[in-house]
Amino acid sequence: DEASPPPGDTGDPFAGDPPRHPALRVNSLKPFNAEPPPELLTQSFLTPNELFFTRNHLPVPAVEPGSYRLRVEGPGGRALSLSLAELRQRFPKHEVTATLQCAGNRRSEMSRVRPVKGLAWDIGAISTARWGGARLRDVLLAAGVRDNTGDSTGDDNEWHVCFEGLDADASGTPYGASIPLKRALSAEAEVLLAYEMNGTELPRDHGFPVRVVVPGVVGARSVKWLRSVAVSPAESPSHWQQKDYKGFCPSVDWDSVDFGAAPAIQELPVQSAITEPRPGAAVAAGELTVKGYAWSGGGREVVRVDVSLDGGRTWREAELGPRPERGRGWAWALWELRAPVPAGARLDIVCKAVDRSYNVQPDSVAPIWNLRGVLSNAWHRVPVTVTR
Amino acid sequence: DEASPPPGDTGDPFAGDPPRHPALRVNSLKPFNAEPPPELLTQSFLTPNELFFTRNHLPVPAVEPGSYRLRVEGPGGRALSLSLAELRQRFPKHEVTATLQCAGNRRSEMSRVRPVKGLAWDIGAISTARWGGARLRDVLLAAGVRDNTGDSTGDDNEWHVCFEGLDADASGTPYGASIPLKRALSAEAEVLLAYEMNGTELPRDHGFPVRVVVPGVVGARSVKWLRSVAVSPAESPSHWQQKDYKGFCPSVDWDSVDFGAAPAIQELPVQSAITEPRPGAAVAAGELTVKGYAWSGGGREVVRVDVSLDGGRTWREAELGPRPERGRGWAWALWELRAPVPAGARLDIVCKAVDRSYNVQPDSVAPIWNLRGVLSNAWHRVPVTVTR
Ligand SMILES: [Mo]
Ligand SMILES: [Mo]
Repeated sequence: DEASPPPGDTGDPFAGDPPRHPALRVNSLKPFNAEPPPELLTQSFLTPNELFFTRNHLPVPAVEPGSYRLRVEGPGGRALSLSLAELRQRFPKHEVTATLQCAGNRRSEMSRVRPVKGLAWDIGAISTARWGGARLRDVLLAAGVRDNTGDSTGDDNEWHVCFEGLDADASGTPYGASIPLKRALSAEAEVLLAYEMNGTELPRDHGFPVRVVVPGVVGARSVKWLRSVAVSPAESPSHWQQKDYKGFCPSVDWDSVDFGAAPAIQELPVQSAITEPRPGAAVAAGELTVKGYAWSGGGREVVRVDVSLDGGRTWREAELGPRPERGRGWAWALWELRAPVPAGARLDIVCKAVDRSYNVQPDSVAPIWNLRGVLSNAWHRVPVTVTR
Repeated sequence: DEASPPPGDTGDPFAGDPPRHPALRVNSLKPFNAEPPPELLTQSFLTPNELFFTRNHLPVPAVEPGSYRLRVEGPGGRALSLSLAELRQRFPKHEVTATLQCAGNRRSEMSRVRPVKGLAWDIGAISTARWGGARLRDVLLAAGVRDNTGDSTGDDNEWHVCFEGLDADASGTPYGASIPLKRALSAEAEVLLAYEMNGTELPRDHGFPVRVVVPGVVGARSVKWLRSVAVSPAESPSHWQQKDYKGFCPSVDWDSVDFGAAPAIQELPVQSAITEPRPGAAVAAGELTVKGYAWSGGGREVVRVDVSLDGGRTWREAELGPRPERGRGWAWALWELRAPVPAGARLDIVCKAVDRSYNVQPDSVAPIWNLRGVLSNAWHRVPVTVTR
């Protein structure tokens, strides 16, 4: 989740990056990291492709679709090499509506407690799309991977599927990440090798021509510009799997951190934020509309969002917007609360969500502070004043 | 989770209840509801049967094992009737180490915020055992239930498995509950029809001769003295499924509650508590040992426990005890922290756990208060003084 460009190259490795929508709020230009403004984020259930948050670790690779090949390595030395046409034609197209969230979403709130290392994301490092592609499960089975996920006495949960991207630093080291093989093989987990985003081909910033989409899991595992898929007894050796994207006790600092001691983030905890009004706003007396999003990892759909106008002393339940495919809880819920507010009042608006396992968000940021500023999911607070 | 005895019976329907261990702390005698004292709770990883928390809704039925029959109803009118010997012999014995927790565990902390309806459990309505029995999956397949859980386009997740106990009120209405069919059929979810608890037959208070054990799910679904299992398109019509064991916004009271609006609790959220020292204790200066348990629902094993001695301002990481079968996260973690404490200090000891999905416990009780006092999983706080 670092923003430093690859070192020691001649010329600008980012010169070939695509154009971007001017409404995006840029956290880092090279590599490009940007989020939509909060008001636009909750204007529609599916985020328009050009406003979808962009989290690039490296320059955007230029891929010629005609010569693109995806390498898929099974456990016994068997391997497939798939062209884009083969990926589209050999495997049924599967579609999933899923929210992706960066581990660093809402990091800027954590930095206010104590500085952390990472991009200063506000609340917009989260977006939702309808993804279309081949199921990773189908591709792995075609590569000879045996499906014994139903057999809980097996040790499948100890194996992993490692992904590498075509994006690489100056030394040629690509972006990489992994997920457990069990998730990769689960029909229910719906992991995709996606070539479509909201009905069109993937934009270059989102992984053209093929990216992984792991519903319910931190965005960092949904590797873009996918070059290879390999079944392995170990997690990805990549920096981003081993030395990043992990959570720690607030007392752990850069001198004491042991990245081997914490599990790599996969499923994310329950999350929500207020997109309207904005902090510090002056709102009109009368009926106030509060809007936001709520989401949880692992397919645990959001079942309730509580909103407070008085800093958390009293709460009322927000109205949840419609969600397609209830029961496959990969997508966020947009929510809204309307409440009368008196002229001259100072409101401390707060939201917190509850997911299907009745997990809730923590009240405050400091006790979940961690040196990388990930997993920032405390109650979201928006102070406003009501005009006279 | 109510303690009221069945009405209008002649004689004492609880007269046949079994004897109990004198160390148990009784919250209600008829029906019997009791928990082990905290110090005993974390003395061993597996809770001795006689100290396992007991949560009875009704009188303990007297079951003659020779004439016991379990009725299993599939979807197409097909049914099985199994004797205890048949259940033991026809299906392979499967063993699971799983923690069960009552939805009302730690309710007494919630009552201190504002009164709630329910038994005043302290922190001991949670215990761990090694369970042995037939897999519910195997029994359902033998009853003709089709396994299409791997097919995510099916609507299996809309079906349920309903359980009824042999315990009944004066009108003959039995205890009942249900779980989703998807969980019941999942080999990985390891749902048992258990006839063994820590290597012996089930004690009468824990469901002799057969009970359900649903790992990772609220105790209320692990129906004891099991009489029938039925596959159904709807959840159990039982009071305890429909009008109880659900979570609500703190603003919902008995006038406004709509039990149809909230999902029945299945997986529980992340939880932890301090078992030693006890609140108000005077501890010796020098090295203090803090002990406790931590657990989360859905198999999401606990990955970290943070402990504070100053009310949550600073934190250190507790040492987690060994857990058998890492990766099948059905059982709690016992933990311990040793820290030097100066004479005369006042300590506000706090613990909070983090599970594999990086969900955390909320800081405080009031914002998760609900009228039934369930899901009480805020940070656990134990104030102590250090002697001079
Ligand atoms: Mo990320
Ligand atoms: Mo319970």
